[in-house]
Amino acid sequence: MSNSSIDKASVVNRYLPAQLVAKENADAFAPSNIALCKYWGKRDVELNLPVNSSLSVSLAHLGSHTNISHSDTGLDRVRLNNKDLSLDSNFSRKVIAFVDLFRRGQKIALTIDTRNNIPTAAGLASSASGFAALVLALDEFFSLKLEKSVLSAFARMGSGSASRSIYTGFVRWDMGTQADGMDSVACQLDSKWPDLCIGLIKVSSAQKPVDSRSGMTRTIETSKLYPSWPEQAGSDLITLEQAIAEKNFSQMGACAEKNAMSMHATMISAWPPLVYWLPESLAVMHKVWQLREAGVAVFFTMDAGPNLKLLFEACSHSVLQAEFASMEVVRPFSD
Amino acid sequence: MSNSSIDKASVVNRYLPAQLVAKENADAFAPSNIALCKYWGKRDVELNLPVNSSLSVSLAHLGSHTNISHSDTGLDRVRLNNKDLSLDSNFSRKVIAFVDLFRRGQKIALTIDTRNNIPTAAGLASSASGFAALVLALDEFFSLKLEKSVLSAFARMGSGSASRSIYTGFVRWDMGTQADGMDSVACQLDSKWPDLCIGLIKVSSAQKPVDSRSGMTRTIETSKLYPSWPEQAGSDLITLEQAIAEKNFSQMGACAEKNAMSMHATMISAWPPLVYWLPESLAVMHKVWQLREAGVAVFFTMDAGPNLKLLFEACSHSVLQAEFASMEVVRPFSD
Repeated sequence: MSNSSIDKASVVNRYLPAQLVAKENADAFAPSNIALCKYWGKRDVELNLPVNSSLSVSLAHLGSHTNISHSDTGLDRVRLNNKDLSLDSNFSRKVIAFVDLFRRGQKIALTIDTRNNIPTAAGLASSASGFAALVLALDEFFSLKLEKSVLSAFARMGSGSASRSIYTGFVRWDMGTQADGMDSVACQLDSKWPDLCIGLIKVSSAQKPVDSRSGMTRTIETSKLYPSWPEQAGSDLITLEQAIAEKNFSQMGACAEKNAMSMHATMISAWPPLVYWLPESLAVMHKVWQLREAGVAVFFTMDAGPNLKLLFEACSHSVLQAEFASMEVVRPFSD
Repeated sequence: MSNSSIDKASVVNRYLPAQLVAKENADAFAPSNIALCKYWGKRDVELNLPVNSSLSVSLAHLGSHTNISHSDTGLDRVRLNNKDLSLDSNFSRKVIAFVDLFRRGQKIALTIDTRNNIPTAAGLASSASGFAALVLALDEFFSLKLEKSVLSAFARMGSGSASRSIYTGFVRWDMGTQADGMDSVACQLDSKWPDLCIGLIKVSSAQKPVDSRSGMTRTIETSKLYPSWPEQAGSDLITLEQAIAEKNFSQMGACAEKNAMSMHATMISAWPPLVYWLPESLAVMHKVWQLREAGVAVFFTMDAGPNLKLLFEACSHSVLQAEFASMEVVRPFSD
C-alpha cells in the first residue's frame, strides 16, 4: 500500500471542460452490488486502487437515487432519505469533498439529495451505490457526457466498490496497472442468469465497530496470511467467470463462499483480531452448511460486516424462505 | 505432506532390547497440555512430523493415568475411565496398535487401563496426555529406561501433541529435520510462571464433526492461505519464548491468541470451510475482547474444536470467574 503522488483532483480535472455548465437539476440511479470475488486491500489509498480484480452482481432496482439541483440558500444542502443532514456530518463532508473535485473552487451551491431504497432490513452498505449514483448525477448535471469507464473510475475514487455499481448484471472490476488508475475500472459481463437469487439476511444493523477502510489497513499491516490473498482472489476470479459463462451454479456458489471466507480469514488473523461475525452470523452459516449437506444448493457470501447474502437459484427459493423467514430475496436479472 | 518411507515399527525397534522383560504392572501419569503456538500441519503423516515447531504449557495434575498389567484371559483388555471397551472400538484399536510396536509379535496379553482426570466440563482432548502416559507406562512396564527425548518421539508417533505431554511446565516441541523424526521431540523450558492461570471454558461437548487429523489434511490441500502458516508459527514461537522468559504477560497472551486465530483462519479458508467455532464460541470471544477493552488482561486460545482456554494472571481470577461462572481454572505452576 503506498500513497500515490497523484491526487484525485488532478485526475478528475483532465476530464472536465474549462468552464462547467450546470443544468437546472439531474437525477440518477445506481444499484447496490454484491461481490462474489471481493475487493480487499488497496495498493493506493488516495485513488482506491485495489490489489486484486473483483467481480460482483448488481442488485437490480435496489440502490441509490441521487438528485442534484441548485441550492437557493447560497450554501450546499445535503439530504439523505428525505432528511437534511448537518454539513459537518461524515456523510455530508464526504459528498461535498467529492463534488468539489468537479466544482474546482467555482461557487455553485448545490442540493444533493440521496435516497436509498435498500430495504432497511437488508444490512447492505450504501456507499457503493451512493457514490456511483452521485457520479452519474454529476455527469448529467454538468453535461459532461463522460464514457462509462471514466464514470466507473471516478466512482472508484469515492468508494472502491462503487466502480462496479455503474453497471447492472455481472460486473468485473479490473485492478489495472496505471499510476493514475484510469485502467482500474469496471465493465459489464455479457452473461445473464434469470434464475439467480440473492437472499439478504440481516443479523444486526448496529454500526460496524471497524469500518472497511480501517479493516483493510489493519489486515494488511498485521496479518501474515494476507499476502496469499491476491493470489486467491486472482484464481477465484477466473473460476467465477467460467462458472458464470457456463451457468454452473455449484461452482459459482462454492467459489463465492470460499472467496468470502478467505477474506474473513485474513481479517481473523489480523491483530487485534478483526471478527465481523456475530454469534448469529455463525448460526446462519452452520444452517447453510446443514442445508447443503441435506442437498439444498445454497451458498453464502459476506462482506466486512455481520450480515449474510445467500446465493441460490429460483428452484430453491421456497425451501430457503421457510428456513430463513426474514430473508429478503432479490433476483438481479428478473426484478 | 508426504508419506515417509520409514515406518513407526522400524523406528521403535531400534530402541528395544532383543527380548522384552515385562514387570507385573506399571503405572504412569502424563499431563494435558495447551498449545500457545499450535501444531497445525504434518510433513510426514506416518510419524506425525510437523511443519512447524510448537510450544505449550502442561496442565499440572490434569491429564491421564495409565496402568499396564498382564491380562489373565489371554486377550488384551482395554479400559477407559473404569469401563471395559470393545476391542473393536476406535480407542482400543489405536491403543493396541501402539502397544504392538513394542510387543513386536510376542504373545504378551495386557490390560491397559486409562483414567483421565480432566474435568468433563473442560472440553479438552485427551489423546495428548493419553499417548504420553501410555509411552511412560510402557517404558516402565518393559524396564526400557529410555531417555525422555526418545519417549517424547514415541509419544509423538501416537499423537503429535503427545510429544509435549511428556513434560510439565512450558514445553517446546522442535520440528526437527531427520527423516526418522528422532530430533522431532519436545523439551522443557526453564521458566516457571506461578501466577499464570488457564481458564477452561466449555461451550460444547459434542464430538467434533471433523477430527484434527482430517482437518489438517483438508486445510493443507485446499487453503491458499495455509502456506503462510509455518512462517507465522515460526515467528510466534520466538515471540512466545521471549515473552515467557521475561514474564511479559500481555506479549505472551497476545501472541498466543493471534497464533490460535491464524490457525483457525487457515481452516476457515479451506474448502469446504472448516469452522469449529459455534455461536457460543464467538460470544465468548467477543466477551473477552470487551473485557480487554475495559482493561482486563485476558487472552484466549482455541484448538480444533469449539471450546476456549482463557489465559490470565492470578490477579484477574476473581473478575473473570464472575464473568464466566462455569469456567474451571488451572494454575500450571501452582496446582
